[in-house]
Amino acid sequence: MSVTAAKGFRAAGITAGIKDSGNPDLALVVNDGPRLAAAGVFTSNRVKAAPVLWSEQVLKAGQVSAVVLNSGGANACTGPKGFQDTHATAEKVADVLGLNAGEVAVASTGLIGVTLPMDKLLPGVETAAAALSGHGGEKAAIAIKTTDSVHKTAVAEGAGWTVGGMAKGAGMLAPGLATMLVVLTTDADLPAADLDKALREATRLTFDRVDSDGCMSTNDTVLLLASGAAEVTPAYAEFADAVRQVCDDLARQLIGDAEGASKDIRIEVVGAATEDDAVEVGRSIARNNLLKCAIHGEDPNWGRVLSAIGTTSAAFEPDRLNVAINDVWVCRNGSVGEDRDLVDMRYREVRITADLAAGSETAVIWANDLTADYVHENSAYSS
Amino acid sequence: MSVTAAKGFRAAGITAGIKDSGNPDLALVVNDGPRLAAAGVFTSNRVKAAPVLWSEQVLKAGQVSAVVLNSGGANACTGPKGFQDTHATAEKVADVLGLNAGEVAVASTGLIGVTLPMDKLLPGVETAAAALSGHGGEKAAIAIKTTDSVHKTAVAEGAGWTVGGMAKGAGMLAPGLATMLVVLTTDADLPAADLDKALREATRLTFDRVDSDGCMSTNDTVLLLASGAAEVTPAYAEFADAVRQVCDDLARQLIGDAEGASKDIRIEVVGAATEDDAVEVGRSIARNNLLKCAIHGEDPNWGRVLSAIGTTSAAFEPDRLNVAINDVWVCRNGSVGEDRDLVDMRYREVRITADLAAGSETAVIWANDLTADYVHENSAYSS
Repeated sequence: MSVTAAKGFRAAGITAGIKDSGNPDLALVVNDGPRLAAAGVFTSNRVKAAPVLWSEQVLKAGQVSAVVLNSGGANACTGPKGFQDTHATAEKVADVLGLNAGEVAVASTGLIGVTLPMDKLLPGVETAAAALSGHGGEKAAIAIKTTDSVHKTAVAEGAGWTVGGMAKGAGMLAPGLATMLVVLTTDADLPAADLDKALREATRLTFDRVDSDGCMSTNDTVLLLASGAAEVTPAYAEFADAVRQVCDDLARQLIGDAEGASKDIRIEVVGAATEDDAVEVGRSIARNNLLKCAIHGEDPNWGRVLSAIGTTSAAFEPDRLNVAINDVWVCRNGSVGEDRDLVDMRYREVRITADLAAGSETAVIWANDLTADYVHENSAYSS
Repeated sequence: MSVTAAKGFRAAGITAGIKDSGNPDLALVVNDGPRLAAAGVFTSNRVKAAPVLWSEQVLKAGQVSAVVLNSGGANACTGPKGFQDTHATAEKVADVLGLNAGEVAVASTGLIGVTLPMDKLLPGVETAAAALSGHGGEKAAIAIKTTDSVHKTAVAEGAGWTVGGMAKGAGMLAPGLATMLVVLTTDADLPAADLDKALREATRLTFDRVDSDGCMSTNDTVLLLASGAAEVTPAYAEFADAVRQVCDDLARQLIGDAEGASKDIRIEVVGAATEDDAVEVGRSIARNNLLKCAIHGEDPNWGRVLSAIGTTSAAFEPDRLNVAINDVWVCRNGSVGEDRDLVDMRYREVRITADLAAGSETAVIWANDLTADYVHENSAYSS
């Protein structure tokens, strides 16, 4: 599982002391090759953390030999000092492992606007390097957790090759391209251009369609590293499918562990004129606080679905809209449909189907309900 | 106060039995002239309630002789039956008062997707007509409440003329143009075109800049009726100013009574390149659930302000952004500024100032915090 499921990778997760809690807070993933091909997608938030700015530059060359990730501090909105700290972290990794700092990606997560304790982080890099192992994927996944209650890993197997990965993310979880830290590894032998294409396709349909709380992070990073150690070059479609499978699995785990959530809401928009329309409508429903409260209260309040659809620019006629909640079509032709008392909402997963009756395009967006626990967790986070 | 502060108007608020609670639920406002000039702005939600569709048609002629408003049911997403019910309500008012139904505006508020109990509403119109009085403005304001804890009225006096009004709205409160039911009356003598211009200017800067919970209603209606009974035609600028004053007062009351809120957040965006940029940034901050939770927890979490700004398309450079919370500049040049411990957030009003350092335009948006009480109130609303 995790980032060491594929051959050619070592990883470690250790406690550097960045977190006051004493929980693991530093992860290192190393690609031992023979290939160092890599691709990455990053937050589209215009306020980007220092490690995002750094790693975007690193990824331009399509080569990554190591990734260092810390929890306990986002290193976002930290000015020139923050960028220097990221640079120093990459240099330290390069120094300890005999690599080129320009091939070391950096990712950080935690509170915005606080500089990292470099006196703890840099010695931590040495500890992590000493702990690197072909079985360290699980520990690395644990070390990148913030408010996550569980660590997240996934794997997909091809014919003689593997794609594995780890993810963290529980709040500030809405697509920007992606909304979390994710590292995927594969031992398949593919050029960086193919990795890039497969990763962009996969994130567009998975992480980019997760919208837990409408809040886009400054630190989102999704990396895909290929070692070529399996000495197999799979057909592109087959490889892209495996990457999407792993991303989908991790995205679903993120929603299932979102801060304070009691429901996972699968919003399927059908009958849209375009895919963009379907995504816009799905997101509008996903972000409607009143609907999210209603789902929490197990109330099939379809009027709030319609009022959310009505704020979009998608093609539809109000008197042709249909809405199902857990397969009961409670709204037909923009008006009262089947009896809402038929809707059973006891289970964690709730399915909303919105039919725009305007075409044949579809999209699925995953969201969470809005709960008092979310409020409690996020009104006390930094204090 | 309220809609009977201006001469030439009578109003009533009674219990028709639409609400199960037995609270007042039907209001009637009559313009006795000599003028019947009127203007209205309505929700920009594309899913519009039947009374909105009806009243939009009525207002096209710029003449309104009466407004009938009910709480206890929004008559939205109720299909052809819903529109027939609205029409029948206007006909009943016209019939009882000897008016033309084409000059009777209708407004409804309450749960979406439920048809109105016409067997209670129509007799209620007769009761309300019998109760009409030149001092009935207060009772009318009470009868349009839903989850409002207090009724809302305001008044502004000119030289020999008056603008008064009432408003309701506590949830699904975000601009669409306006997001609530509001009736304003004046005894000034002005043509419908001037009323329309003054009302649009006022709502753009007041109700349209209230964003309590990001959720746009299907029923928003703001009407301005002029009786001409004061026999004074004020200068346009003076009149427009009075209308804006009343709208501003009512908008502030709506924020102060929003569902479950414990804080009123005044977000002032300064240094914007355009007013549109300022409004876009203000709204993005206003709708950020994580920030709204932080404010609830009295946590001056300026990183969440920056992450919200970063999702907009406004002109700015991340490393030039400045943010103050209650006048303490906690973020300077996109990085750590004054000590966040200096911020005192004990009071209900919290002021966030976001300086984009990109120009000289400004805008103020009002929002509320996100609380467990909001979740509780809205997860149980329809059950």
